Amino acid sequence: MKRSLMWMGGLFIIQSKSTGGSIRLSIWSGVHRARPKEKGLPNHNWRLTFINKCYELCDTYPALLMVPYRTSDEDLRRVAAFRSRNRIPVLSWIHPENKTAIVRCSQPLVGMSGKRNKDDEKYLDAIRETNKQNSKLTIYDARPSVNAVANKATGGGYESDDAYHNAELSFLDIHNIHVMRESLKKVKDIVYPNVEESHWLSSLESTHWLEHIKLVLTGAIQVADKVSSGKSSVLVHCSDGWDRTAQLTSLAMLMLDSFYRSIEGFEILVQKEWISFGHKFASRIGHGDKNHADADRSPIFLQFIDCVWQMSKQFPTAFEFNERFLITILDHLYSCRFGTFLFNCESARERQKVPERTVSLWSMINNNKEKFKNPFYTKEINRVLYPVASMRHLELWVNYYIRWNPRIKQQQPNPVEQRYMELLALRDDYIKQLEELQLANSAKLSDPPTSPSQMMSHVQTHF
Amino acid sequence: MKRSLMWMGGLFIIQSKSTGGSIRLSIWSGVHRARPKEKGLPNHNWRLTFINKCYELCDTYPALLMVPYRTSDEDLRRVAAFRSRNRIPVLSWIHPENKTAIVRCSQPLVGMSGKRNKDDEKYLDAIRETNKQNSKLTIYDARPSVNAVANKATGGGYESDDAYHNAELSFLDIHNIHVMRESLKKVKDIVYPNVEESHWLSSLESTHWLEHIKLVLTGAIQVADKVSSGKSSVLVHCSDGWDRTAQLTSLAMLMLDSFYRSIEGFEILVQKEWISFGHKFASRIGHGDKNHADADRSPIFLQFIDCVWQMSKQFPTAFEFNERFLITILDHLYSCRFGTFLFNCESARERQKVPERTVSLWSMINNNKEKFKNPFYTKEINRVLYPVASMRHLELWVNYYIRWNPRIKQQQPNPVEQRYMELLALRDDYIKQLEELQLANSAKLSDPPTSPSQMMSHVQTHF
Repeated sequence: MKRSLMWMGGLFIIQSKSTGGSIRLSIWSGVHRARPKEKGLPNHNWRLTFINKCYELCDTYPALLMVPYRTSDEDLRRVAAFRSRNRIPVLSWIHPENKTAIVRCSQPLVGMSGKRNKDDEKYLDAIRETNKQNSKLTIYDARPSVNAVANKATGGGYESDDAYHNAELSFLDIHNIHVMRESLKKVKDIVYPNVEESHWLSSLESTHWLEHIKLVLTGAIQVADKVSSGKSSVLVHCSDGWDRTAQLTSLAMLMLDSFYRSIEGFEILVQKEWISFGHKFASRIGHGDKNHADADRSPIFLQFIDCVWQMSKQFPTAFEFNERFLITILDHLYSCRFGTFLFNCESARERQKVPERTVSLWSMINNNKEKFKNPFYTKEINRVLYPVASMRHLELWVNYYIRWNPRIKQQQPNPVEQRYMELLALRDDYIKQLEELQLANSAKLSDPPTSPSQMMSHVQTHF
Repeated sequence: MKRSLMWMGGLFIIQSKSTGGSIRLSIWSGVHRARPKEKGLPNHNWRLTFINKCYELCDTYPALLMVPYRTSDEDLRRVAAFRSRNRIPVLSWIHPENKTAIVRCSQPLVGMSGKRNKDDEKYLDAIRETNKQNSKLTIYDARPSVNAVANKATGGGYESDDAYHNAELSFLDIHNIHVMRESLKKVKDIVYPNVEESHWLSSLESTHWLEHIKLVLTGAIQVADKVSSGKSSVLVHCSDGWDRTAQLTSLAMLMLDSFYRSIEGFEILVQKEWISFGHKFASRIGHGDKNHADADRSPIFLQFIDCVWQMSKQFPTAFEFNERFLITILDHLYSCRFGTFLFNCESARERQKVPERTVSLWSMINNNKEKFKNPFYTKEINRVLYPVASMRHLELWVNYYIRWNPRIKQQQPNPVEQRYMELLALRDDYIKQLEELQLANSAKLSDPPTSPSQMMSHVQTHF
């Protein structure tokens, strides 16, 4: 049976799995299915709320939200008033064993006067206390601290130490969308029309692109490490919580949870942390808009995919997908051929009937899955990936950024990959031949048949 | 039978192959065995000369030399007088099909007055004319042209255009041993005791190490390309012909001739182009010498091994050996545990009875060959390798240069390599099981037996 993904109710559905009433829940199935032993969500600490089902609480959030069990919808409304664009803290991921959570939101509306909000403080307490084993909360503010301070002038800011009980705040020093846009422009300058050669390394350094990649990865590693240690729940935000926050939560989940390293898992990750949580694709990419100088544009999602590529280079067997999968996603980020990346948020997509009027990129990919598979992939359920976020281990993604420059000598297709796939085919061929021979043998001799897979089990386990 | 290499007569012998009188010839066997169909050397264009059998013509050259057939030993003596340290042009490698030769030597003793030498000119004519199909000679002077000019002041220089018939001179801009030594010192400065992180790329660039690697590789590519095209024979020299010249000839041979990409072939290459042709290992490394500031020291051989490593990164299936093989060679370059790299030249090694008093590094390696094998290796006889010598494709060899720094997070062992080896073992296991089953089958049924290797031939060819 061919499987395909469909749009429905602003969330996407794996057609072969979900039906009827459970449709909207499927967005959360990723969390659940990643750990089959896990009891899943909702549980006695976390509940689903329908407060946003018509996007009336927060028009850039998904319709369904997971919040602490003991918090009422009334509480949520009061918290929303103290969070930029009403983007309240909600659950993104929960550790199957230690129950530590990753929660995402936007900045608190502290302002110049340093306002406090009892409801917000109580809500963060509730989040902290969903985990009985520890009672700490680490708040990762993605921004450089000076930027977080500067945001007070426009009504924003960050959580003050004394207002939030048992909470610790760290700044992750990741720059804003404008800095990232200018950095990528510099990358383009050194590879088009001529590729800088005599001072390649210092030119590359002066773009700061890899330095930004490093900071994003370093931030995500901190989130993943904190959650994995089980010592503290984690709250992540930046200013509005739709750019850097999405990068950090999705990369941390990729490090923590092997489900998201599968093709289907990665699609759910993008759908969940980026598309449903309102990363402003339309504004950041500028779909159908001629104003190329628009200050709202920024390659934040591309930067996330670049980080994923860096991880796949460091862990060549950990991801089910290959480089082509990542490049295909980026190509259709700009192509507008699929509805997947259109508009800025779920509510807009619903109004525009995107699910009914367009096809999902994931349907195309899942119907051609073989093309996007990494032959080296080996599923390792419980492995947490910690990439090395050092400049010595990061590379410019030449196959993406410089692929159209005719002056670039194309990288050869990887002969090791080719050889490896031949060996896998050979293995399958041998297994088939062995089975046939064994069947013939046992039929002729009327011996009790030995199952070939039984016989082979010790050598098949790894592949 | 275990094979081992032994020292004898200043040359090394593959014990299982050579006996008695043919022993000294074995150094040339690499040239011959690389192309089994090739008639080999000597032939009607090239002859062996014994003029240097007691190192009386040139004390830094090997005892056996291959020279143009029509040149007499008397001619060779007169040519020696016009070449720095008597290092006359002699054959290093010959193309099996187009018969184009790589010839190596030292600079001509032109001096300030621009002396010419009829014997040298006649000799280069003879080299040129060993190849009937073309009658051109390309002279690659490894040095930057300003250095070549400066050498005139101390009696050296380069071939003038009008003196040598049908010859063309190119400078390859590779710097001298002092520049390379200082460059590597700078590499050490940025990785010990702390690894420079915030400006890693520009710091790396400022060492110029990769730029030097690039120039050496670019020079070797030019040599290989010229020889491969069959349009011109090639003469390579620098000043004395024992540093940059050895780098260029051995790298060009590695690009041109797949034999040298095997473990045994690479040992022969090092033995031939470096050890026998008098690369001054004792002076360049400073074995047993406390004077660390000695201006004669320089990492020329290390730089060559680095170039080989860069090639192996770009062609992961082309070399029989792995990174460990290269690192082991470098470790014993400094260890003095084996006689292989002791002393400056063959004549000194013979005087010191190194072959009788020491063990060869190659014996140790060849008795533990499995450890040094690259599982991805696929023999491709006629493939010429042209690495991309661009800064974008060159990397610092972190696993060698920074391996002892405890601050460096170790690179993981390559999981793809591990997996690949498991697949190879699995394949062999299946073949064995198939053979057993087929035998059992045919014995029981008395059918004419089918050879399993016959049955499998189509799937076995690639491996």
